[in-house]
Amino acid sequence: MIPKIVPIADAALSQSLADAINNKTKPLGSLGRLESLAAQLGLIQRSTRITIDQPAILVFAADHGVVAEGISAFPQDVTWQMVENFLGDGAAINVFARQNGCALHVVDAGVNHDFGKRAGLVHRKVANGTRNFAVEPAMSAQECATALEHGMALARDLPGTVIGFGEMGIGNTTSAAALMHKLTGQPVARCVGAGTGLTPDGVRHKADVVATSVARHAHATQPLEVLATFGGFEIAMMAGAMLKAAELRKVLLIDGFIVTSALLVAARLQPNILDYCVFSHCSGEHGHALLLEELGARPLLDLGLRLGEGTGSALALPLLHAAANFVNEMATFASAQVSERSA
Amino acid sequence: MIPKIVPIADAALSQSLADAINNKTKPLGSLGRLESLAAQLGLIQRSTRITIDQPAILVFAADHGVVAEGISAFPQDVTWQMVENFLGDGAAINVFARQNGCALHVVDAGVNHDFGKRAGLVHRKVANGTRNFAVEPAMSAQECATALEHGMALARDLPGTVIGFGEMGIGNTTSAAALMHKLTGQPVARCVGAGTGLTPDGVRHKADVVATSVARHAHATQPLEVLATFGGFEIAMMAGAMLKAAELRKVLLIDGFIVTSALLVAARLQPNILDYCVFSHCSGEHGHALLLEELGARPLLDLGLRLGEGTGSALALPLLHAAANFVNEMATFASAQVSERSA
Repeated sequence: MIPKIVPIADAALSQSLADAINNKTKPLGSLGRLESLAAQLGLIQRSTRITIDQPAILVFAADHGVVAEGISAFPQDVTWQMVENFLGDGAAINVFARQNGCALHVVDAGVNHDFGKRAGLVHRKVANGTRNFAVEPAMSAQECATALEHGMALARDLPGTVIGFGEMGIGNTTSAAALMHKLTGQPVARCVGAGTGLTPDGVRHKADVVATSVARHAHATQPLEVLATFGGFEIAMMAGAMLKAAELRKVLLIDGFIVTSALLVAARLQPNILDYCVFSHCSGEHGHALLLEELGARPLLDLGLRLGEGTGSALALPLLHAAANFVNEMATFASAQVSERSA
Repeated sequence: MIPKIVPIADAALSQSLADAINNKTKPLGSLGRLESLAAQLGLIQRSTRITIDQPAILVFAADHGVVAEGISAFPQDVTWQMVENFLGDGAAINVFARQNGCALHVVDAGVNHDFGKRAGLVHRKVANGTRNFAVEPAMSAQECATALEHGMALARDLPGTVIGFGEMGIGNTTSAAALMHKLTGQPVARCVGAGTGLTPDGVRHKADVVATSVARHAHATQPLEVLATFGGFEIAMMAGAMLKAAELRKVLLIDGFIVTSALLVAARLQPNILDYCVFSHCSGEHGHALLLEELGARPLLDLGLRLGEGTGSALALPLLHAAANFVNEMATFASAQVSERSA
C-alpha cells in the first residue's frame, strides 16, 4: 500500500549537472543555494533541463478533537471559516499562490462542518474532525488508511511537476507536536509552541496535554499507529499525498511545522522521500527548527512566518523557478565568449 | 548638491498600517518579516496601500585600476565581456529580472572598453576605468562628482516605485573593502574576501594591497574624499542614484557587498537614506554580513549568493510583491466573517 520511493542519486547525471552549472557565466559556486537546489531538481527529474510546470499547492483542512482540552487561541469554527475564506480568495495563501502563478486546491480532509456542495472545494472528508487524543486515539486504523489513500489519489491526479503542501486546522500544532515527540524522541517541551498565539501559560497547558496524552497511548510506536493515534486527517492525507508524489518523482515543497510533521511520518515509512523535498522555510513556530534539523533539512527562507496554509511553499516557489531558469537560460562562458578565470 | 532625505517615521500612519496588517485573516504577527517590510513600504509611500510599480534594476559597470595589483581571479576584460552578456540576455541578472517582471538597465559607468553605439546600453562613461589606488587616488574630485550626478539623473528619470541596484566590475570587491574599512573602522582583514574566487593566498595579497593603499591615502577621511580615493565609477554612480531615489521616496533594493558599500558612502552623507532601503540578501562574500551589521540591516534572503549584478535584488523582488499584496488583497476578520481569537 505504501508507495515505493527510490533514491535520486545518479553519479553520472550529478556530474553532468555540475558541468552545466559550472559552465554558466558566473564565478564558480556564486549562486549558492540555488546551485544545490538546481542539482537536486535535475536529479529528481532525471534531466539537465529542469521543468517547473503547473505547480500546485494542496491545502488540507481538518478539525481536531483535542481542541476540547483548550489548546488553541482560536475557536474550532475558524477552521471552516478559513476554508470559506480560501474559497472566497481572501486568505494569505490565495494572495501568494496567485502572485506566483500557482494553482491552489483546497481539500476538506475532515472539517467539523457541512459545506454542502461547494464549487472549488475538494470533498475528501473522512469524518467531522478527529476524536480527542487526550482521551482516545484520534482516528481508527481504517480512518487513517482512508486519509492516506485519498492523499495518494489526489497527488496521482495532479498534472504538474511541483506539489506544494499547506494546511488549516485549529489545534493541529498540538497534533504535530505529539507526532514530533513520538517519532523523534525529542522532549515534549521542545516540540510544543505557541501555535496561533498562546500565552506562556497556554503553551505550558498545551505541553501538559501532550505529555499526558503520549503517556496514555505509550503502546503506539509504529509510524502508522502513531499517526492514527495523534494525527489529524489533514496530516494523514498530506503524508499520503507526499508518498505518492515522491513515487511519481515530483518535487515536494514543504511548508511549516505541521506540513513537516506529516513529512516526518512519511519519512519514517519511506526515508528516500527526503530526496524529493525542498524545504521552503523555517517557521517561527517553536518546534520547527529542531524538526528540520532532525530531518537534515536546510530551508530556503527564514522570515519568521508561522501562518501555515502553505504560505511558505508559495513564497519559495520563485526560488525554484530561479534555480530552473538559470540552468535552462544562462549563457555559458563559451557561448557568451567570456574569459574564464586566470588563476 | 547632495539630495535632502527626510526620515519616514510617521506615528499616525504607523498605527494605521499596524491596524490594517493586524485585521487581516491571520494570527497576529504570523507573516513575520513580511509584516515589518509592508509597514516600511507603507511609510516610504505614505499610504496604507502599497504600490510596487514598474520595478527596475540598474546595473552599473566599470573598471578598476587596482586590478594591476593582481587582486582578482578574473582578467579585466571580463567586465566588458559581461556587459556584452547582459546586452545579449545571457547573464544571471537577465534571467532573474525577466522571471520577476523587472526592467533591467545596464549602465557603462566607466568600463575600459569602447562599446561604440549600442542599443540597450546606457552610456555614462566617466573614464576608461579608475586609476590604481595602490599608487594614486582612483578618481579626481571632479570625476567623482560627475559619477554622482549621472547616478542622480538616472534615478530621477526612472518611472517606477522600486529601484534595485546591481554592479559589474572586475576588482570592485577590493574597492568596496577599502571603502568599508575607511568608513566603518573595521580591520582590513574583516573587510576583504575572496571576491570571484581567490585562493587563501590571493585573499592575503588582496588584504595587503588594501592595507598599503589605505596607509598611503591616510589623509582621506571625509566620505566623498574616501569615495574618490578608493571608489569605482560604478560605486560612485550607484551612491548618487541611491541618494536621489531616496529623496524621491522610492524603495531602494540593496544587493550584495559592493552595492552595500555604495550605500555605506551614501549613508555617511545622508543617514536617513537607510529608511528607504530593503536589504535583499546576505552575500557569501566575507565582509558583507559585518557591513550589514554596521548599517543595522537585516537582509531578507541568505542563500550564499556572491555573484553581484543585482541578482539578490531581483530574487528578493517577489517578497516585496508579497508584502504589498497581502496588505492590498487579503480579507479582514470582519470582511471574511472569521472569528477572532478567543483568548
